[in-house]
Amino acid sequence: MLLSERARLAEAIGEIQTQLGLSHYDPLREIQMLEILTAANRGPFSNATIKSLFKTIFQASMQLEQEADKVHYLTSRQVHRADTVVMVGDIPIGGKHAPVLVAGPCSIESREQTEATAMFIASRGVKLFRGGAYKPRTDPYSFQGLGEDGLKIGRTACDKFGLQFITEIMDPRDLPLFVEYADVLQIGARNMQNFTMLRAVGRTTKPVLLKRGLAATIEEWVMAAEYLLSEGNQSVILCERGIRTFERYTRNTLDVSAVALAKLETHLPVMVDVTHSGGRPDLLVPLTKAGLASGADGIMIEVHPNPAIALSDNKQQIDFEAFDHFLAETGYHKKLSEKRHEVYGF
Amino acid sequence: MLLSERARLAEAIGEIQTQLGLSHYDPLREIQMLEILTAANRGPFSNATIKSLFKTIFQASMQLEQEADKVHYLTSRQVHRADTVVMVGDIPIGGKHAPVLVAGPCSIESREQTEATAMFIASRGVKLFRGGAYKPRTDPYSFQGLGEDGLKIGRTACDKFGLQFITEIMDPRDLPLFVEYADVLQIGARNMQNFTMLRAVGRTTKPVLLKRGLAATIEEWVMAAEYLLSEGNQSVILCERGIRTFERYTRNTLDVSAVALAKLETHLPVMVDVTHSGGRPDLLVPLTKAGLASGADGIMIEVHPNPAIALSDNKQQIDFEAFDHFLAETGYHKKLSEKRHEVYGF
Amino acid sequence: MLLSERARLAEAIGEIQTQLGLSHYDPLREIQMLEILTAANRGPFSNATIKSLFKTIFQASMQLEQEADKVHYLTSRQVHRADTVVMVGDIPIGGKHAPVLVAGPCSIESREQTEATAMFIASRGVKLFRGGAYKPRTDPYSFQGLGEDGLKIGRTACDKFGLQFITEIMDPRDLPLFVEYADVLQIGARNMQNFTMLRAVGRTTKPVLLKRGLAATIEEWVMAAEYLLSEGNQSVILCERGIRTFERYTRNTLDVSAVALAKLETHLPVMVDVTHSGGRPDLLVPLTKAGLASGADGIMIEVHPNPAIALSDNKQQIDFEAFDHFLAETGYHKKLSEKRHEVYGF
Amino acid sequence: MLLSERARLAEAIGEIQTQLGLSHYDPLREIQMLEILTAANRGPFSNATIKSLFKTIFQASMQLEQEADKVHYLTSRQVHRADTVVMVGDIPIGGKHAPVLVAGPCSIESREQTEATAMFIASRGVKLFRGGAYKPRTDPYSFQGLGEDGLKIGRTACDKFGLQFITEIMDPRDLPLFVEYADVLQIGARNMQNFTMLRAVGRTTKPVLLKRGLAATIEEWVMAAEYLLSEGNQSVILCERGIRTFERYTRNTLDVSAVALAKLETHLPVMVDVTHSGGRPDLLVPLTKAGLASGADGIMIEVHPNPAIALSDNKQQIDFEAFDHFLAETGYHKKLSEKRHEVYGF
Repeated sequence: MLLSERARLAEAIGEIQTQLGLSHYDPLREIQMLEILTAANRGPFSNATIKSLFKTIFQASMQLEQEADKVHYLTSRQVHRADTVVMVGDIPIGGKHAPVLVAGPCSIESREQTEATAMFIASRGVKLFRGGAYKPRTDPYSFQGLGEDGLKIGRTACDKFGLQFITEIMDPRDLPLFVEYADVLQIGARNMQNFTMLRAVGRTTKPVLLKRGLAATIEEWVMAAEYLLSEGNQSVILCERGIRTFERYTRNTLDVSAVALAKLETHLPVMVDVTHSGGRPDLLVPLTKAGLASGADGIMIEVHPNPAIALSDNKQQIDFEAFDHFLAETGYHKKLSEKRHEVYGF
Repeated sequence: MLLSERARLAEAIGEIQTQLGLSHYDPLREIQMLEILTAANRGPFSNATIKSLFKTIFQASMQLEQEADKVHYLTSRQVHRADTVVMVGDIPIGGKHAPVLVAGPCSIESREQTEATAMFIASRGVKLFRGGAYKPRTDPYSFQGLGEDGLKIGRTACDKFGLQFITEIMDPRDLPLFVEYADVLQIGARNMQNFTMLRAVGRTTKPVLLKRGLAATIEEWVMAAEYLLSEGNQSVILCERGIRTFERYTRNTLDVSAVALAKLETHLPVMVDVTHSGGRPDLLVPLTKAGLASGADGIMIEVHPNPAIALSDNKQQIDFEAFDHFLAETGYHKKLSEKRHEVYGF
Repeated sequence: MLLSERARLAEAIGEIQTQLGLSHYDPLREIQMLEILTAANRGPFSNATIKSLFKTIFQASMQLEQEADKVHYLTSRQVHRADTVVMVGDIPIGGKHAPVLVAGPCSIESREQTEATAMFIASRGVKLFRGGAYKPRTDPYSFQGLGEDGLKIGRTACDKFGLQFITEIMDPRDLPLFVEYADVLQIGARNMQNFTMLRAVGRTTKPVLLKRGLAATIEEWVMAAEYLLSEGNQSVILCERGIRTFERYTRNTLDVSAVALAKLETHLPVMVDVTHSGGRPDLLVPLTKAGLASGADGIMIEVHPNPAIALSDNKQQIDFEAFDHFLAETGYHKKLSEKRHEVYGF
Repeated sequence: MLLSERARLAEAIGEIQTQLGLSHYDPLREIQMLEILTAANRGPFSNATIKSLFKTIFQASMQLEQEADKVHYLTSRQVHRADTVVMVGDIPIGGKHAPVLVAGPCSIESREQTEATAMFIASRGVKLFRGGAYKPRTDPYSFQGLGEDGLKIGRTACDKFGLQFITEIMDPRDLPLFVEYADVLQIGARNMQNFTMLRAVGRTTKPVLLKRGLAATIEEWVMAAEYLLSEGNQSVILCERGIRTFERYTRNTLDVSAVALAKLETHLPVMVDVTHSGGRPDLLVPLTKAGLASGADGIMIEVHPNPAIALSDNKQQIDFEAFDHFLAETGYHKKLSEKRHEVYGF
């Protein structure tokens, strides 16, 4: 059977090409074969039809080759069926573990602000602290973070209150500092396709939290994670943070399908940043419930001792009182005081 | 105090203008006042600054006038604080009532297909049947629905199995037919801003299910509902059905913030069409959970005896077996067999 | 040759199905054939692969059927290679004719405002007047147009100053009025997929100006035109008016690719509404130049005696002085005074 | 006059804050002042109204402060009224100079392919060569460019044929190599908000070509340029390359408003990448005409000796014959053979 032959050939060629690092598609080969085929055409239908059909068969063969490759994507559930559980210190994220909560200020602004927040969230049972020392800002003259000082402040506060420190890296040249001070390296939405930084971070063993780009497709997001895994780093957490839409009532639009699909297509843990997803304190509770209902392994939220005077995001961070309200309304309240390793009952 | 005077005046003028049906903004009046003010300016800052400040005060005054109007939007929770409960037959939708489930085929294709589906969903405790007799199709040569025959088939099947009949109206000239055959008039995404049809439907007393447009903002969606309420129809159910985004893994993107905000800003019940939101059978369960978690009062889903041969939407409808799986996975299974008026435990 | 046989068969079946008005795709037939084929599979590759390949061949056959159909789309250049020239009175639009200019207020507000504008644009050589009597407004309490009185005012003004009258229809029930008073029926962006109105308007012989929906793809826009042509109306003008994007500096984003592709794929004249595309008077000149450079057959622009007090769109309409400036900057100045039938020199 | 006093104060405070690098907005100060004001309220309207009005006045004052700052944005035409002309070798880009043409392959794949292209375009009068040695690819296993070898090949080819070499930098750590080999540093769409790389590139004196992000607003794009200028680099060229939209007929959508607004709001030269904007060879001519008509200072286009076997972008690059056709159809043909410093006649 001709088709069987062709497909067997295509698979073999595809394999060689993969080894050589070439693109599978060889249009010259295709053009030659099409010419042979149309020369042999004895009707009843036109050469255009023959070409169209064989073009489709070539594409089917190529798709087979790509499917075969897909099996090799390290992010794919077809390669790695079991849920990956990322350990941050002794905190497991993903799989059957209870959803975690990451909390902390948008920016580390001072020792006082940082320690007050760390102490507060630790008292509520939160184990994971977030806070930016390097801040990506649209305007070059906005507050850009405290830099290395911020990393030190964050580290000290986390050590003092038994927290794990999650903070954003913006430049591969800063890696040594981050390896020293941070527990989880966050890659922000604007750097999701900063491919050389992804490779550099992929060569460390630090857990990584990879945010989805503002207008990235799910495939682009997963391929960004593939960059990390392809360099050897297995501890990758995906984080949905809302996508850009036309909506003016919200800052971004939480995409729960992306959470569900990331869980279906990959084996990685997925979190939801509910602060950036909506940009509105009054949406934190419903977005948290919706994120967990769609399968998220954790929630990230911004909390600040006094949001009104925060140096960044001051309209969307919540204060301590609102945080307690958030815990109660979402049921996190109860869960954080329980023993770990219990499945969260959403 | 000058400011007090001006605001008092503005309110009075605004009221008169509202009664006259005029736009509040009178730029001529504003230009005259600005000229008087700059003439009176004795420093220390420039006329441009004075103009800018007073422009802002004018705008503040206008905003006050608009806020005052907003109080009069019939959809607004500021006007009507309690949740509206829409009765469809004896089924309450909204408020503290358990979330409902609407099920049925995309299109009514034949008596057999319709009755088989109606009988099946009724046997599972579903009380609300959906099915289109008039189908909005991008291509004029696609199947456009059975028209009046479809309405009759749907009516007969619903009567036979004790179901309420929800079906889409596309033209105000068809109203008499719909008033005769349907229990709920659905307004589709493409007709969300078909304003004359909104007014016509608003003058009936039939419950209305208003889908959100494919790229409509939340405000535009709520204003479309306002058209219905402004004509006297109080029985309006909003229905989120996914928005257009760049994503290629899904047909549309479910916007759970829209559900949450529609609940916050209006008093109307809100449903989620999970079939169109994702366009993928494998997302029906997580999107249902997420929709209910964000506050939805019900879910709408497409089910067909044999989706593979459906005349429309044949990739996204599910069959009876998959529907039973859906009921079990989402917990609807249990809820539909319980007594009504119990709160659903999400 | 098996493939040839199959394709010949598919074509014949497709033709019969088209005549019967059925969808081409018959999944049952496909399932049966797949079973036969896998039963006959003697290696060397798996049934899954065989299925995948034959699935692709089925799709190829279906695509052939659809391509054959496409030849029958009345909007397609493959059916009608020559440019369609739509005559509005004695004004030709499309083909090699000089690009036209349509001007007038957003809304017809009064006899004075309408006649002042008509007199002014006529004095500048403009032959096509636009003005809305029925206005689609997001808010039900905004100014909705003068209705039938507006149509009468527009008709009278156009007759007085030798202009053709273009005005928007929002409801098929108003058709008799529009047939009496208007020269061109405009279908607005919000009604681009109001399919029953498209059919009704398609059954008249009045020229139609069909605006692209706010978030419509080019294919959806062309299919909307197909509705009009399929009912017999050959005089359809497409009008790009900007699409919704994330941009906040503009109201919409002019899509010049859509203009170029509409010219490539269809034979219909294409216009650009530069007022709505940008929503900014300072963009009217560059957007006009870009629209014409990408192949537009005409430009539509809003002009008002006193935009500051207009009842709608008062930030984007321009006054008479700005209109003269627009004519000079875009070169329309010269063209409008020349003899018709000369090609515009962009 | 109270308002005058307040604004004078705000300006002074704003200036001090700018010097201190703080955000202007001090919500604590605002809260205190609001309390004082409402305490002093003697009717006739509510404290809520008073608060709303004064809130607006505070915002007006803040806006004044921000406007004052805006005067200090180095990209702004309010700071630098004259068009900036960027010199690339002896080729001027911007101002009244004829629009330039940048051509070359997507990727540098081999010495032969690169020199064949360079020789060809040089023979047509093109002075600016593009070609990527480091390629940002969604998939980590796609061809990623030849790296340093590619830079050397590009440099040699450009020297041999008298061309300027434009190539994309993806990592600040590669700067020394790029300073050695390249004439213009291109910053790609995916790195538009790679802020640390922007700063690093801004500290060189090499001309920079800054592409707009796939879903960036015009403001974000201009602010990215501000990062470059703020570090001292004055030679920045903006490059529109199409934005992501829902459209499936094109790869991206060319945004001519962005070209026009970038010219209005900044003093920098603006180019259009017509290959990526449409992703379709049949749109290159209309998009080039539209880009130039909207004010672009140059066009960038991909050309390859044999696009069918290109290692990247093989559907959108054109071959030499198509390039000659492009030159003839757009009128570039004539312009490139003329003396420089003549204004291009679009």
